[in-house]
This record gives sequence, C-alpha cells and structure tokens, in this order.
Amino acid sequence: MPESIPANSVGLVTPQSARFSEPLQLESGRTLSEYTLAYECYGALNAARSNAVLVCHALSGDHHVAGYRSMDDRKPGWWETMVGPGKPIDTDRFFVVCSNFIGSCKGSTGPASINPATGQPYGLDFPIVTVRDWVQTQARLADLLGIERWAAVVGGSLGGMQVMQWAIDFPERLAHAVVIAAAPKLSAQNIAFNEVARQAIMTDPDFHGGQYYAHDTKPRRGLALARMIGHITYLSEDAMRQKFGRDLRNGEHLAFGFDVEFEVESYLRYQGRSFVERFDANSYLYITKALDYFDPAAPYEGNLAAALAPARAHFLVVSFTSDWRFSPARSREIVTALYANNLPVSYAEIEAHQGHDAFLMPIAQYVDVLGGYMDRVGRECGA
Amino acid sequence: MPESIPANSVGLVTPQSARFSEPLQLESGRTLSEYTLAYECYGALNAARSNAVLVCHALSGDHHVAGYRSMDDRKPGWWETMVGPGKPIDTDRFFVVCSNFIGSCKGSTGPASINPATGQPYGLDFPIVTVRDWVQTQARLADLLGIERWAAVVGGSLGGMQVMQWAIDFPERLAHAVVIAAAPKLSAQNIAFNEVARQAIMTDPDFHGGQYYAHDTKPRRGLALARMIGHITYLSEDAMRQKFGRDLRNGEHLAFGFDVEFEVESYLRYQGRSFVERFDANSYLYITKALDYFDPAAPYEGNLAAALAPARAHFLVVSFTSDWRFSPARSREIVTALYANNLPVSYAEIEAHQGHDAFLMPIAQYVDVLGGYMDRVGRECGA
Repeated sequence: MPESIPANSVGLVTPQSARFSEPLQLESGRTLSEYTLAYECYGALNAARSNAVLVCHALSGDHHVAGYRSMDDRKPGWWETMVGPGKPIDTDRFFVVCSNFIGSCKGSTGPASINPATGQPYGLDFPIVTVRDWVQTQARLADLLGIERWAAVVGGSLGGMQVMQWAIDFPERLAHAVVIAAAPKLSAQNIAFNEVARQAIMTDPDFHGGQYYAHDTKPRRGLALARMIGHITYLSEDAMRQKFGRDLRNGEHLAFGFDVEFEVESYLRYQGRSFVERFDANSYLYITKALDYFDPAAPYEGNLAAALAPARAHFLVVSFTSDWRFSPARSREIVTALYANNLPVSYAEIEAHQGHDAFLMPIAQYVDVLGGYMDRVGRECGA
Repeated sequence: MPESIPANSVGLVTPQSARFSEPLQLESGRTLSEYTLAYECYGALNAARSNAVLVCHALSGDHHVAGYRSMDDRKPGWWETMVGPGKPIDTDRFFVVCSNFIGSCKGSTGPASINPATGQPYGLDFPIVTVRDWVQTQARLADLLGIERWAAVVGGSLGGMQVMQWAIDFPERLAHAVVIAAAPKLSAQNIAFNEVARQAIMTDPDFHGGQYYAHDTKPRRGLALARMIGHITYLSEDAMRQKFGRDLRNGEHLAFGFDVEFEVESYLRYQGRSFVERFDANSYLYITKALDYFDPAAPYEGNLAAALAPARAHFLVVSFTSDWRFSPARSREIVTALYANNLPVSYAEIEAHQGHDAFLMPIAQYVDVLGGYMDRVGRECGA
C-alpha cells in the first residue's frame, strides 16, 4: 500500500470494460460472437481527439499500466515508470489507453469466461487468437472511444508485435509506432521454450483437458514451471549472476540435499508459486500460441519488407544489448525492413544488463530515448 | 543394427563391473558402505602400463563410449566418432577406460539400486554425490586395473569437470588433462535451468517422494519436461534455426490448435518421451545436483588459480563458439587460471554452430585438434 500516491503518478484509477456484440472474425477462421474488453485510460482526450496513445501489453501484463486501483495496492501498474504526469508517456499531454487482450484472464473474454453456447467456461473450446485479432479488437475500442487515429501505438515484447501489426493493418490510424524489445517472429528456440511451458501445463494431471475450472482445481505445478522457464529467458545471464551468483540460501554451508540450496532456486520457486495465484493456465497457453503464430512476413515468403509495405507510420525501434529472448539483431531485422520501405525510423540499442526485462525498467538512456521521441509525438499532434 | 561393424570401430564390446566394498567417504560427509562401478575398456594396456586414457562421461552419458554391445544395436557408443582404431583417441595405441559414475542408472550404484540397509531401492535416501566423489571412485578403479598414472584424462561438459577435479586431487596420476566444453562452475542461469528440471520431476504426482519404484510408476511427465529443457540448452539458437526454423509439422497450413504445430515441438516431445525409457528420474536429480555443486574455487574465495595450484598435468582446453550453456568465455576462465600457475596449456576455440552438443560431433577442426594433441600424448607415453 502506498502511504500516499506519488505526485508523478496518474493516481487512483478505475478499470473500465466494454462489451462488443458484433461478431469478430478471427484469423483462425472461427468467429467470436461477442466479447468484452477490459481497459484503462489516463489523461484527457483533447478536443481535436489527436492526442491518444495506445499502449499494448505483453504476455503476463494487463490493462493496468499505471497508477493504483486502491490505496491498498502494494504496487502500481506495470509501466508506472514510463506512464504518468511528466513521464516519457506524459499523461499531462496524452490520453493513454490500454486494453487487455482477448484470451487473457484479466477482465477481457478468455478461456476462463463463460461460453454462451454452453453456459460453462470455454477452456480449450476458446478459439485460438492471434496478434492480428487483438489489433482488430483494439481498433473497435478506438472506434468506441472516438479515436480515429492514434498519435502513437507503443508496446514492448509481445506488445511491440501488436504495434507492428497495427502499422500493417491500419496504416492510416497511427502516426507513430514504437516497437520495443520485440522481434518480427519467434525463433525456433523461442517456440521451443513456449512449447516446454505448454507441455508443463497440459501434462499436469490437474489440467483436465483445460476444464479444471469444473474440478475445483488448477494445474498449479505446470503453470509454476511454465513461469519459471519464462523467467529464465527474461533475465540475462549477467543479470542473474549479478542478482544471485552462486549465493546460498542459508549462508555458507552446503546442505547436500534437494531443498532450496541456491538463492536463484528460491527466487524461481517464488516466482512460480506467486504467478499461479494471479494468472490462468489456459490463458498462458493461448497467449504463448499467439506469440508462436506471429509472423507477418509468412504470406510474403518470409520477406518482412513486403509485409511492412502498407505501413505509413514513423517508427521508433528500441532494443537492449543483453536481451537474448529478442536480441538487438531481431530488432535490426525490423529496422532493415522499414528502411527498405523508405519509412522514417529511429533505432536505439540501449546498453543494459537486465536482459529482456529491461523494457520494463527505468534505465536512464531508455527513459531519455522514449521521452525524447514522445515529446516529438506530442508536438506533432498538438498535445 | 549395423549390417557389419565398421573397420574403424572398436567392434563388439562387453561392459564390465567391479564391486568396491571399502566404504567411500563422500564430500557431503556421508559414507557409501559399498558400491558397484560399471565400465568398459577398449584397446590393450601396454607392458609399461603407460598408455591408459580415462574418458569421463557427461550428464546423460554412460560407460558405453564406443563400439556395439550386440549386432542388434541400432547405434554405437556415444563417442564413436572420437574413440576407435585410427581415431583421435586411438584404440590401436591407447587403453581406453570409461566408468559410469555412481548416482547414475546405467549399471553403477545409484538411487535405483537396492539400499543394503533396507532391502529397498535407495530413492532419495541415496547420498548426494559430487564430482570429487566420482573422481575418488575412478581412482579406485584405476588401482584395480593396475593403472598408476593415466596418459590422459579426457572429458566433455560434466566430463570436463571431472578432468579438472582429477588434475587437482591426483596431480601425479595424470600426464595430460583434456577439458572440453566445460566450465569452472555453473552460472546462476545454469543452476536455474537445472532447478526447473528438478522441480518438473519432483512435483510430478508420480514421483512419490522418489520412491516411485514401489508404486510401479515413474515421473514420466516430469522427466520428459526436464529433458526438453535440457535439449534447448544443448543446441544453439542458430542450430535450432537451421534444423527446424519455423517449419510446420504438417506442411503449409496452420492448424490453430494445441497439437504439434512446428517441427521443433515435435522434436522436443520425441526427445522427452524417448529419454524417459532409458533414464531414471532420480539419477537426473542427483547428477544435476553434482553439476550445481561443482565449484573447485569455492574454498579459495572464488580464486580458480588457487584451486588449480596443485595441478601438474599438461592441459588441452577446447570450447565451441556457439555453446551458450558453457560458452568459450567459461573455458577461457579455466585457461587463465592455468596460465596463472605456469602450467602448459593449449586452447582451441572451435568454430561450430551446433551449440554445446558440438562436443559430441565429428567437426573437422575439432577432430584435428584432439587427434593432434592425443598423438603427442601417445608419443610421450610410448604408445
């Protein structure tokens, strides 16, 4: 709980929710007849409706980007460091929107929601959703909010993939695209890590084919393992060394047993356990699948420049030196494809030891780069 | 099954076994009252007993290094490419020995063996064993075989760690130490991967606290997951891209479901499934723990040069450019510590895209380096 809300926070915020009853045609070929999007907004939309910024969240994120939902909140939103009054995404200037994507478990329709056809939770009957589907739902939310064109669409990791998809699918509806710590598609190694995570969940005897809701249980072990695997890939080897090294949990003495011996083991077990309390295992399956499927260049025989040909936005692409999940080389693939289309691109490779997680952290050079770019976005849109 | 045994193979081999009844004082403080070592030998010990080479195996390896155990064998031993007549470790010149380490499940005493105190399998009552313990058992085997001094002790990965320990604990008993694709200790990231693998096994409901033998089951799901995680770390990202890329299992069309979609998923699931048939889950726990604990510099406040001060051997250290499990930087730490002791060291960093698994492969430069070095070993020992 914050004793008082810091002055540079958006403060107390209220999540909102919108119901869409026009059927959504999904990339898989299936249709979602109706769905809910949970979202949050900060700042004020100006009269010209020109100062709106869409933030796209990543795998385990949600629409609670900044501020506190109550005075009992232990922590603010996941991007508090970047979004707020006077911050890089300045809520004194911008109207900031973030919606939770469908398939998730944070308020938008997903596998834990009730399937109107059966009256039971969807489970694995929920359709596979993709980054393209998410962008469609975000466009409908923009319509609802009366936003014809975003001053910028911004996102890190899986969020950055949504930004790319926005630039391809709705080129006229965004002025700037900010793609952070992303990749144009998953590598075989990325897919491999996702697959082990999914197998951990789906082979857990408490998974019950995804209908664990009816069994008053959930695949706790599997989801915890999935999260532990994920965490290893979010941190650089160097960050792990700095954070834990080979430090022992209980001082100097080796225990020679199978209980927690090293600090890093304790950290991972804690991360696994706590994730189970706040995330739905089926959602983890669906979101990792959306990651696997993202590959806008696939219809163009792998030619990313061809895939990005419709784009009209100005781009900022940001990567982090120690990110081995989506390395700077992956960001440079995006930059090269944008250059090939003669699109205006700024590229920043931030020196950071934190690995993929760096995109969530207030690293000075990163704050400066994003702040400087968003200042320009603000000046252009009259914010 | 080989239609005929290739001429450059050691041919049909017979595993051997030795029972040791003198109690073994373990690094953990516990004692193993008696134990069996399974081993294989190839070539002939010369009259001077000067041409013996010890090969140390890695995590999932065993003492079956080369040749075929029967004409029905589908594959030869795990290092067939390097050990045999006219090969780098030339069985026409050397008497080659490899023993399966205790804690394993391939014939030496381990957690699946009967605990003489209870008449039941040890399970987790088996004591924690370490690299130092293994080297003690190998020294006793050397005594039994009448080998006072090895012409060389050779090993890759966890095998390379045993080689380092040999050089420290028995400096007068080896002339040459060949340390391949190893590290002076695990990093936090290495330990983290091992921990997730162990958690996968130990949280499997079929684990039964390690006494699954009595329940006519085994933690199949957990051990398969552990192996899948391991496999990702054995291959480089580049090797995975070359081997699988984003190829789909079933042609061009995306299935939009949770069955195998990409080739890399199919590969991993197969690797997991097949490993369960040939490896004991408890052994996987014990061996990953031995890896975690290996840190000869720990008693010297992390000073590896001080730890290696007793060493007298000549060293060959080999690393592979794309190995991210034990990267070349880790091998260079070993080289630097050896230099600090004025020990003769050759170091080869082999250009290879295969990742950690490269140490098992017949890469031309690697074959040449090892062959050239072993030729010198042979000339020095009169082989």
